[in-house]
Amino acid sequence: MKKIIYGCAYYDEYMPYERLEKDIEMMKKAGLNTVRIAESTWSTEEPHEGEYDFSHITKVMDAMEKNGIDVIIGTPTYAIPYWLAHKYPEVMADTHRGRNPYGARQLMDISNPDFRKAAERIIRKLAEITCRRKCVIGYQLDNETKHYDACNEHIQKAFVQHLREKFHGSLKEMNRTYGLDYWSNLITDWDVFPDIRGTINGSLACAFEEFQRSLVDEYLAWQAAIIREYKRPDQFITHNFDYEWRGYSYGVQPMVNHFHAAECLDITGCDIYHPTQSHLTGAEIAFGGDSARSLKQDNYIVLETQAQGFPNWHPYPGQLRLQCYAHLASGAGGVNYWHWHSIHNSAETYWMGILGHDFEENDVYRDVCTIGHELERIPDHIVNLKKKNKAAVMVSNTALSALTRFPIDMDATFQAGSSYNDIVRRVYDTMYQMNLECDFITPEHEDLSRYSLIVLPALYAVDEACLNRLKKWTAEGGTLVSTFKTAYADENVKVYTDRKPHILHEVFGTYYHGFTFPENVTLAGTDGQAELFMEFLENEGCEELYRYDHRAWRQYAAITKNSYGKGTAFYIGTLVPETVLKEILSNAAQCADIELCEESYPLIVRKGFNQYGKKLTYVLNFSEKEETYTLKENAQDLLSGVRFEKGQAVTLNETGVLILESE
Amino acid sequence: MKKIIYGCAYYDEYMPYERLEKDIEMMKKAGLNTVRIAESTWSTEEPHEGEYDFSHITKVMDAMEKNGIDVIIGTPTYAIPYWLAHKYPEVMADTHRGRNPYGARQLMDISNPDFRKAAERIIRKLAEITCRRKCVIGYQLDNETKHYDACNEHIQKAFVQHLREKFHGSLKEMNRTYGLDYWSNLITDWDVFPDIRGTINGSLACAFEEFQRSLVDEYLAWQAAIIREYKRPDQFITHNFDYEWRGYSYGVQPMVNHFHAAECLDITGCDIYHPTQSHLTGAEIAFGGDSARSLKQDNYIVLETQAQGFPNWHPYPGQLRLQCYAHLASGAGGVNYWHWHSIHNSAETYWMGILGHDFEENDVYRDVCTIGHELERIPDHIVNLKKKNKAAVMVSNTALSALTRFPIDMDATFQAGSSYNDIVRRVYDTMYQMNLECDFITPEHEDLSRYSLIVLPALYAVDEACLNRLKKWTAEGGTLVSTFKTAYADENVKVYTDRKPHILHEVFGTYYHGFTFPENVTLAGTDGQAELFMEFLENEGCEELYRYDHRAWRQYAAITKNSYGKGTAFYIGTLVPETVLKEILSNAAQCADIELCEESYPLIVRKGFNQYGKKLTYVLNFSEKEETYTLKENAQDLLSGVRFEKGQAVTLNETGVLILESE
Amino acid sequence: MKKIIYGCAYYDEYMPYERLEKDIEMMKKAGLNTVRIAESTWSTEEPHEGEYDFSHITKVMDAMEKNGIDVIIGTPTYAIPYWLAHKYPEVMADTHRGRNPYGARQLMDISNPDFRKAAERIIRKLAEITCRRKCVIGYQLDNETKHYDACNEHIQKAFVQHLREKFHGSLKEMNRTYGLDYWSNLITDWDVFPDIRGTINGSLACAFEEFQRSLVDEYLAWQAAIIREYKRPDQFITHNFDYEWRGYSYGVQPMVNHFHAAECLDITGCDIYHPTQSHLTGAEIAFGGDSARSLKQDNYIVLETQAQGFPNWHPYPGQLRLQCYAHLASGAGGVNYWHWHSIHNSAETYWMGILGHDFEENDVYRDVCTIGHELERIPDHIVNLKKKNKAAVMVSNTALSALTRFPIDMDATFQAGSSYNDIVRRVYDTMYQMNLECDFITPEHEDLSRYSLIVLPALYAVDEACLNRLKKWTAEGGTLVSTFKTAYADENVKVYTDRKPHILHEVFGTYYHGFTFPENVTLAGTDGQAELFMEFLENEGCEELYRYDHRAWRQYAAITKNSYGKGTAFYIGTLVPETVLKEILSNAAQCADIELCEESYPLIVRKGFNQYGKKLTYVLNFSEKEETYTLKENAQDLLSGVRFEKGQAVTLNETGVLILESE
Repeated sequence: MKKIIYGCAYYDEYMPYERLEKDIEMMKKAGLNTVRIAESTWSTEEPHEGEYDFSHITKVMDAMEKNGIDVIIGTPTYAIPYWLAHKYPEVMADTHRGRNPYGARQLMDISNPDFRKAAERIIRKLAEITCRRKCVIGYQLDNETKHYDACNEHIQKAFVQHLREKFHGSLKEMNRTYGLDYWSNLITDWDVFPDIRGTINGSLACAFEEFQRSLVDEYLAWQAAIIREYKRPDQFITHNFDYEWRGYSYGVQPMVNHFHAAECLDITGCDIYHPTQSHLTGAEIAFGGDSARSLKQDNYIVLETQAQGFPNWHPYPGQLRLQCYAHLASGAGGVNYWHWHSIHNSAETYWMGILGHDFEENDVYRDVCTIGHELERIPDHIVNLKKKNKAAVMVSNTALSALTRFPIDMDATFQAGSSYNDIVRRVYDTMYQMNLECDFITPEHEDLSRYSLIVLPALYAVDEACLNRLKKWTAEGGTLVSTFKTAYADENVKVYTDRKPHILHEVFGTYYHGFTFPENVTLAGTDGQAELFMEFLENEGCEELYRYDHRAWRQYAAITKNSYGKGTAFYIGTLVPETVLKEILSNAAQCADIELCEESYPLIVRKGFNQYGKKLTYVLNFSEKEETYTLKENAQDLLSGVRFEKGQAVTLNETGVLILESE
Repeated sequence: MKKIIYGCAYYDEYMPYERLEKDIEMMKKAGLNTVRIAESTWSTEEPHEGEYDFSHITKVMDAMEKNGIDVIIGTPTYAIPYWLAHKYPEVMADTHRGRNPYGARQLMDISNPDFRKAAERIIRKLAEITCRRKCVIGYQLDNETKHYDACNEHIQKAFVQHLREKFHGSLKEMNRTYGLDYWSNLITDWDVFPDIRGTINGSLACAFEEFQRSLVDEYLAWQAAIIREYKRPDQFITHNFDYEWRGYSYGVQPMVNHFHAAECLDITGCDIYHPTQSHLTGAEIAFGGDSARSLKQDNYIVLETQAQGFPNWHPYPGQLRLQCYAHLASGAGGVNYWHWHSIHNSAETYWMGILGHDFEENDVYRDVCTIGHELERIPDHIVNLKKKNKAAVMVSNTALSALTRFPIDMDATFQAGSSYNDIVRRVYDTMYQMNLECDFITPEHEDLSRYSLIVLPALYAVDEACLNRLKKWTAEGGTLVSTFKTAYADENVKVYTDRKPHILHEVFGTYYHGFTFPENVTLAGTDGQAELFMEFLENEGCEELYRYDHRAWRQYAAITKNSYGKGTAFYIGTLVPETVLKEILSNAAQCADIELCEESYPLIVRKGFNQYGKKLTYVLNFSEKEETYTLKENAQDLLSGVRFEKGQAVTLNETGVLILESE
Repeated sequence: MKKIIYGCAYYDEYMPYERLEKDIEMMKKAGLNTVRIAESTWSTEEPHEGEYDFSHITKVMDAMEKNGIDVIIGTPTYAIPYWLAHKYPEVMADTHRGRNPYGARQLMDISNPDFRKAAERIIRKLAEITCRRKCVIGYQLDNETKHYDACNEHIQKAFVQHLREKFHGSLKEMNRTYGLDYWSNLITDWDVFPDIRGTINGSLACAFEEFQRSLVDEYLAWQAAIIREYKRPDQFITHNFDYEWRGYSYGVQPMVNHFHAAECLDITGCDIYHPTQSHLTGAEIAFGGDSARSLKQDNYIVLETQAQGFPNWHPYPGQLRLQCYAHLASGAGGVNYWHWHSIHNSAETYWMGILGHDFEENDVYRDVCTIGHELERIPDHIVNLKKKNKAAVMVSNTALSALTRFPIDMDATFQAGSSYNDIVRRVYDTMYQMNLECDFITPEHEDLSRYSLIVLPALYAVDEACLNRLKKWTAEGGTLVSTFKTAYADENVKVYTDRKPHILHEVFGTYYHGFTFPENVTLAGTDGQAELFMEFLENEGCEELYRYDHRAWRQYAAITKNSYGKGTAFYIGTLVPETVLKEILSNAAQCADIELCEESYPLIVRKGFNQYGKKLTYVLNFSEKEETYTLKENAQDLLSGVRFEKGQAVTLNETGVLILESE
């Protein structure tokens, strides 16, 4: 890319009165250079089946082109028009909760043939009128696509066919692999398969979820192929991935395998929403960014992030700027707000844009202006930031699904407590706070050699091939860190039948037969509580870093370290206090030859290389007061233009940012 | 009326053994003068379709007439017999949760034609045998009628027809007004309308709720018209309205527009249930009473209130008497208990009556006797109490519906927090505690001139005509007080596209672009926290009474005061502590020439004029200890007969009551 | 029996690889003498309709027989194969929540004719191949059978037929008995009966629940009759009853009348699961044991209890042994773990067995070895322990159902609070802690003469015959203790229409008209709070042990004592502190000539007589430290062989056990 994309979603369709000229004037004043349009507006573009009206699209492209603002075209398929649902009721997803009613977006079966036919027509029409336009720099396929838990009959049939192939037609093999004998659940006829929604078999349920995720891969690839028939080589194809949602972007997306789904794209896109005000830490920005960047090991575009968002997200002065640079510091090639103006009706009235409902200049708009003008000054030095992280965190949709079925701290009434993403985020957030940057990889990642440190948070269900790769990589000098609940079940969510962690217990020099939920258990020699889950670690040759302090469990280790071949392996058998986790990770980083800076959260330091091959160091102050950063080498701050000497202490104001360029 | 109606619901149908003679003897001993019968007993009166048995009704009328006890006849339609549901399954309401099963009352579609036919027959039969009876003083239509969220197909069709008329057949106009372009929800064919239950469009959903409420108006008017064919001129028609239920009567009823529905009645009726024991404050009695009285600006009957009610409501000694006079102090023309005896089976076994399950005299019955004898002594001095309040609170079903869809403190996961009625009650309860009496009015209220103070709690969605009336009224000398979240959206729940509060920002001399949920925000110069919601008030010429104290928001005002024309306007931008709210309301009362007495809750003072034109002042002690009231003028206590001099301090015992008559 | 059954459930079907030889070797090493097999494995045994495969069964029987391990055969009907549900969809229970999907166990309609046909076939086949096997010592019918809330159409029809018979065809009688006139619910045609699931009539709902429970009796008796056609006289028939489940075995089972259902059995079986670690009290073991023993006034088998169970149940060292002896101390004839090995797939992966997922020896297995070897040493002295308790607690499914419909502390929004089993457990647990052993009886129990103390916890709905029996028994010298909420309604859940407690108020010398939920109410003269519910007790000749201390309620008694004939009766009108409850129960025990020992929880003392007619005293230390027991007479500890003298103080370690044999 040649510049940082700085833009917003724009909906001429939703304007209560004619605003285009005025809006463009305000955008230009603010330094916004891109708008994303058309996404989710199908019913405007095709009010009746086969009758098209792209006047809003054409009008906006005309005006943007004239004003030098780029346009990203979103295919509108994420929200379907009612005539489609009315004519083809099967288009609506039939989920674990029953058939979805028409109304919201994201309620359809994305693999339904009638949906596909209609979607293909509107995508082709839209591509035709947009692909030759100069302003159009790229396409976004659909939006935040997921499988929406569609369990429609044809999907279930396809799933059975998939199983038939996977097990080479052997029911016996499937029954054994999934343990369907339990509670009399054996399948004895491929054509007599119970509705998957009733199953209590965790393996089968997880296999179906995996199949559902594969529908997303196929669907996006199908859209990409259509767009490729039209688009110019200089136009990109992207998609707006989102994360597990807990009122904000939290963790690994359960309904999509991002790594698989991204294969059809030219560039990754994502949306990242996060707490603000006194709850802003930047952790979600970094997590979402590291995740998105890792999909293609390249830059990505933040296609949506909040301007005002909800009332409780209304940013303090300066926070919007800090957030923007935090995105860039993770390797974002662009930051787009959702959305330009707040909407006056319907469902998301209080998911507010840059402008409020009154369209007047406000505090947020003024912050956007500040950012826009800064970005215009220094684009070539910050665009296309590349990372060379030596640490990786291994994440897995399979582990996530499995630990949703078998929660870490499931209580006696089968109520789930903490889940996979809680552990992923606990590990990731600690690394984030230590300024220990990382990529994300999955168990399918074959070449581990570029990493010297790999962390496995609750990698519960994983195949032996991956475990053997990790074993070999450690033997060859890698530093492996794992939490509890790793390597317990295979990729079919069948628990391994020997010592745990399966295969890796040799690497860690420890194993366990039992586990419990800790109550009043501390790590011996500390005040720190063991929380959530604890494994009874027994010594198979390791160094015991910590034992449990509890009258019944004091013979067991809590955290171990082991030399394995040329490498080192740490095993953390319980949820430990943050201070202890930092100590272990520091120890591991040292083993992995990763140098940590002395600064830590709230002063965030993130690094990479720009297109001139120079080192860029983003220093971001997430504290509510001044913080001091000490220069590691001579460098120039790209924002202020000031040059600093190595060893110099620089004071950053609240929400302050440095972008240090050095050799 | 000639006397205070003092009575109870009576169900001869439910008696486990013959009790009528004994019950009447006990009623007469207690001074009860009225029974309400027949309501909800349809299956007894018409055990098979077209076979009638009014023997219980006739027997009770005979006995009551003989003993000089008046009878109110309730039409039995609030609970339908099973043969009706069996023969016409469509009679059951089809709601957002699906088709109701038969069982409870209030589960039918009140607009269903088969229900109407059957209801008409039983109403006519009942009217025939009762209308000429001397003891029958009036009719209650149905009971606590609501729309029960019926979304049956014919209702939805009628709604579409209603929209077609409202928008003069213009789909474009409807789509624009409701913002249906959002998420591809455009309606492009009047005959292809999605099931309303799936909609995520707040405007459309609120429009449907309004339409559902109109079904209640039409239904009660239809029943009234039938009864009017039979009844004598001296017999009244009433209805038993109820309030938003939160385990007791809490606020504005979401499913009925009481003001509209009451138009067909001769006299308003309502039920009021409330916490008792140490939780008795009288606030619900006053709120329900002021609400009911305001519907026709006249006296009303409390058709149901608790004797014992639930175990946790069993009154302390004296509370039943205090409660009764609190009803009369609001302008009630009668107080009827639900019900005479506690029921031995079914669903409401522990919603207890005056008598417990053993039918013996008990502490509650003895308190009823005390009250009954007092009321017999002084009827002509207390009946027909008239109020001339100068303050009014404006309430709105439209605002309620809108703030249910768009809750004030909706969090990021769309979980609703506080709602419209929380704000209404916060404002009302504060006024109640200050002894600042008020009427309720709605945005349709055209003549505002009788009021000098109008309060707008969260009048979120309101039409411009009302806002212009309020503006004009303030300019002409009125005192207007508004909380946050007022004049934000129009009557179609479309957010206004200019400065907020729309139109009124000129009156208040303040406006805002943004808002948030306060965290650790105080009102500058006080310890008081800003709670729930805060608007960033900017100065358009007002006096800033309070600013926010928070490092990010200190440039914004929290509470403002403004002179506008001959009037004054206060705007309260956040939920403020009670002490501050009282200070603002006192200030406003002074501006509005309303004199407040020095007494306040727990000593409640409520006033009016009796039919001799004399001033009545009820003084009610809701404290658990003695309180002192200072006479404002010479007066006689109607209960004790004692005369007091102006300035004299009178001590009221716990639960003590004075009814002071003065010139 | 000749020995204590010590075993576990064993599922060769679920083994991930061939384990049988190895498992038996480990079992023998541990001293396990019995396995329970076949239960819930229908789909393995009959993979297609009519195609049988009992190879796992035969293989296991062969191996066990060879190794001298006994086998209990469970009929597999508790989990149905999918081909059955597929062919006969009506087999799935249609519950209050709708038709069950296929998947889990216990989702079928046990009275469905097609289910019965298929069940009969598999039971007969299984019986044929097992009944002549030497190792097979008995049969378990089905597993944890309940009615699963099946409300299928044919069940409802049968229920109506049942009502027709019960009321001799008189609709009038039924309507009156159940109070169906309320809310217009009268039934006026036997053939036009509303779906029972919609009813709001508590009496009708409870009658249906009773009818549903009777389906379990009929079903088990039907299975028993089939098995009896095959089994040898020395083979027993049992069933695995379970208790109300609150994450562990809590109280009286709502869906089964254990006393009725057990009639078809030779010996009672049950499962008991309970908290462990620092939450282990033994109360559930004693409760479940006393319950099971009371069904036939004889020994019973614990067919399932936890080895490891859930992670939070993983026992501390020694707890498994303590638990085992606690079962025996209640009269258990056997203790069987669920299950041998932890399962690697499906739903109950973390409901762990003796062996974990790795099949290795672990801490739990080692404890099993200890127990197994001890039991082998002393079988004839501890087997067939008989009890002669003088105290009984009366429990009732009818009261339970009624108090589920009408919860004790139902709040104003009809949310249920505490229920029947909370009160039963409060009373039982206090007796347990006092080492006051008891049987359980029901209101149907005719001969009360063997008991000198009967306790009635919340015996809410009960027939007059029972009340008259209790009255007569007290008059003849019994000591009766009752809590609040007793004798309030009849067996049809119709509230009695006279003084409460009905009939018994004469016995207690007290009655009440009203009640409330206590707030800030203490028992006068103590610090103890009245909790949950309080009745306003009035004096009808009793001694008032405690009054309430509250300004409104101080005229009422809280706890009373009364001489009635030759007996004594205590009435407890509110939920009292444990110290007070113990005081009352001690007082009552004294009146009943029951001698209490000075030891109390955490030192549990439980007694009986062995087959040599000698007295056995189990002393069980549930504390986490040493406790001292003082010998009441000369005795020998069967475990250690040590003889103690009367008066000698013996120290028990944490989890320590004595089994004292004395004359």
